[in-house]
Amino acid sequence: MNHQNLLYAQSGGMTAVINASAASVIEAARAAGPAIGRIYAARHGILGVLDEDLVDTASFSAADLEALAHSPGGVFGACRFDLDTIADNPAQFERVFEVFAAHRIGYFLYNGGNGSMDAVAKLSQAARARNYPLVCIGVPKTVDNDLEGTDCSPGFGSAAKYVAIAMLEAGRDLDAMASRTGRVFVMEVMGRNAGWLAAATALASEGPDDPPHLILLPEVPLDETRLLAAVRATVERLGYCAITVSEGIRHLDGTPVMQQADDRKGHVQLGGAGQCISRLIQTTFGYKSHWAIPDYLQRAAGHLVSGTDHAQARAVGHAAVAFALDGIDGAMVAIQRTADEPYQWTVRAVPAADIANLERRVPAAFIREDGLQVSELARVHLRPLIEGEVRPAFRNGLPVYPRFQLEPVAKRLPAYRRS
Amino acid sequence: MNHQNLLYAQSGGMTAVINASAASVIEAARAAGPAIGRIYAARHGILGVLDEDLVDTASFSAADLEALAHSPGGVFGACRFDLDTIADNPAQFERVFEVFAAHRIGYFLYNGGNGSMDAVAKLSQAARARNYPLVCIGVPKTVDNDLEGTDCSPGFGSAAKYVAIAMLEAGRDLDAMASRTGRVFVMEVMGRNAGWLAAATALASEGPDDPPHLILLPEVPLDETRLLAAVRATVERLGYCAITVSEGIRHLDGTPVMQQADDRKGHVQLGGAGQCISRLIQTTFGYKSHWAIPDYLQRAAGHLVSGTDHAQARAVGHAAVAFALDGIDGAMVAIQRTADEPYQWTVRAVPAADIANLERRVPAAFIREDGLQVSELARVHLRPLIEGEVRPAFRNGLPVYPRFQLEPVAKRLPAYRRS
Repeated sequence: MNHQNLLYAQSGGMTAVINASAASVIEAARAAGPAIGRIYAARHGILGVLDEDLVDTASFSAADLEALAHSPGGVFGACRFDLDTIADNPAQFERVFEVFAAHRIGYFLYNGGNGSMDAVAKLSQAARARNYPLVCIGVPKTVDNDLEGTDCSPGFGSAAKYVAIAMLEAGRDLDAMASRTGRVFVMEVMGRNAGWLAAATALASEGPDDPPHLILLPEVPLDETRLLAAVRATVERLGYCAITVSEGIRHLDGTPVMQQADDRKGHVQLGGAGQCISRLIQTTFGYKSHWAIPDYLQRAAGHLVSGTDHAQARAVGHAAVAFALDGIDGAMVAIQRTADEPYQWTVRAVPAADIANLERRVPAAFIREDGLQVSELARVHLRPLIEGEVRPAFRNGLPVYPRFQLEPVAKRLPAYRRS
Repeated sequence: MNHQNLLYAQSGGMTAVINASAASVIEAARAAGPAIGRIYAARHGILGVLDEDLVDTASFSAADLEALAHSPGGVFGACRFDLDTIADNPAQFERVFEVFAAHRIGYFLYNGGNGSMDAVAKLSQAARARNYPLVCIGVPKTVDNDLEGTDCSPGFGSAAKYVAIAMLEAGRDLDAMASRTGRVFVMEVMGRNAGWLAAATALASEGPDDPPHLILLPEVPLDETRLLAAVRATVERLGYCAITVSEGIRHLDGTPVMQQADDRKGHVQLGGAGQCISRLIQTTFGYKSHWAIPDYLQRAAGHLVSGTDHAQARAVGHAAVAFALDGIDGAMVAIQRTADEPYQWTVRAVPAADIANLERRVPAAFIREDGLQVSELARVHLRPLIEGEVRPAFRNGLPVYPRFQLEPVAKRLPAYRRS
């Protein structure tokens, strides 16, 4: 039996460029000639493997792939689902390999974040244990930029560009609306434990008076007294203050800011961290305060893709196929920075097991001493990641993101009941 | 005494294209030759007039004006300040005309919304009452699109394009993340009393299964039972539901949704309307729910300007000067639609007094019968307003929005104490 088909799947939160990686995987696999048979994709990540819910990417024309490479979201669907350990749930792994065998899968490429790299490491180990001939490769993706072993994660650069431009543009609005009574703007960005996206908004500023004036990172416990003093000083100097808040910031005692006690009545109010910071400032000083939450918008903005990010998303897709053909099993494709200015990078393979379930946080050297801004070192590091513009086609005033009809692969196995 | 200088000012919330109107006013006034002397601007709207805080736009080069026309925010600063009535506060009007006389202002062009048209009408009336030779013109601007007498308001088309694209892109993300347990996304857009921006998100959809599935307008009292049934039906069909919510939606009893009672404990929870709708759905069905609040981002997105909107913002600026030279006092420049497909329009003058303090709301014919979506008529009306792309220059991955050094005009009067 010849296990030479390739299976690709997408996992976790989506990005503006994960489909660019998908397109590149398919293009590279097609170019590989007879080494690779059919090129399949699972719907909704590893759940699609368990459910034997596969599609055949042969239905995508070359033009489709080009359009796909400029469409946000994930064309094959993603999931938030982690495989159990092999010891805890051997039946789950049994099922995965039944599906792989039924469809002669010899290459499995999983496009995701930390959890997906854990799946890559587990599947690689399980395949060896059962002598199943599988090459398993992780394709990196996350707007949080918290993957270890890589200079940055595809998806981050475009989200970073989005939030930096959002702060730049909102800042121009605020500047016009500055008043004697004070105005505050808080933008809450993604990042539960790693403040990379919040840090990237610093790229909007050319000097200390430009928004964002303050950046609150999950890496720095919130010192309310220090924050409020800095807000007041900024408002007194400029008439307004713009603040970026990571959704995951925590109080000094470690509790998340998003759950804030209302001291006057003893109730717990639920809300985002940005809303809580906005309310704290408004209550303290009486400044008029607005808050923005871009939420999904920041990770889906196909109209504002970073050229660097797009090139990297494509490169990790191509490299994943090349590494797979070289038999580099259990690896993640990583981006390696070789120079800052001008930014230069290359790709390499790193062991997925070394990356799985770790979180790369913003290092101390990237944070200003007072904990309320990033350092110049952070700006130098982040700047190249948002450079360049890659735009989709527009029609009738809107980006063109085609819907693709997916071609199901006939099932060969009985249905699976997820445990 | 020859009152021939021109004074321009910006008021109210900013837009992505108000500076395009400003640039066109200055260009047209320069082109007018000796009919117009100096071209001044007041800082922070009518407050800058009262404070005699004027700048001379002669410092702007032609290249500056071109860059200005592609910069969001308001270069001269805006205010949220309404003139009193002449009867209530004659001293205020006395001051305005002292400043006008001191700087030989013969033309006053006020760029704003309903409140600004009220100021135009009052100043025109006050000038006639005191025989001060003034031509006073309103230049329309508002992302809310609630100005009467005009087909649409400059600023709206770009904000509409922004929110439509935001919904389109977030929708692609949601589509990938759809799951058996259900997922809901709520985007709250601007519009206290008029749902034009919410309605414009409908342009993101090509069919009933495309986001946004539901649109809640301030024109339609919220029927929670009907909303929840529609949400459930959508989630059961698609695995997710995307909803646009106007910030100003109200309950059947007229209270704003943004203040929502938590029935379980009897507390009042404050939050935006989008957050309240998200919470209502999550509490009722247990679907995972996200909410986004673009806030200032939607009205400041210079990187996503509508070609139609930009052309109209420029046209009303040019026309304001032409009408001023023709002595058409107390008028607002209005956009008149002459054809739908292809969209054709022209500009005309309408009496500012007829528009002041009115609000143009989304008409019943633009709302679907169940009140949870817009009609095809609305789409036909709105579609041309977001068409075309006008982009700023980009450098280092960010739009180029220059900061301009403003040239103050020497004060000639004693300081004014605002009453």
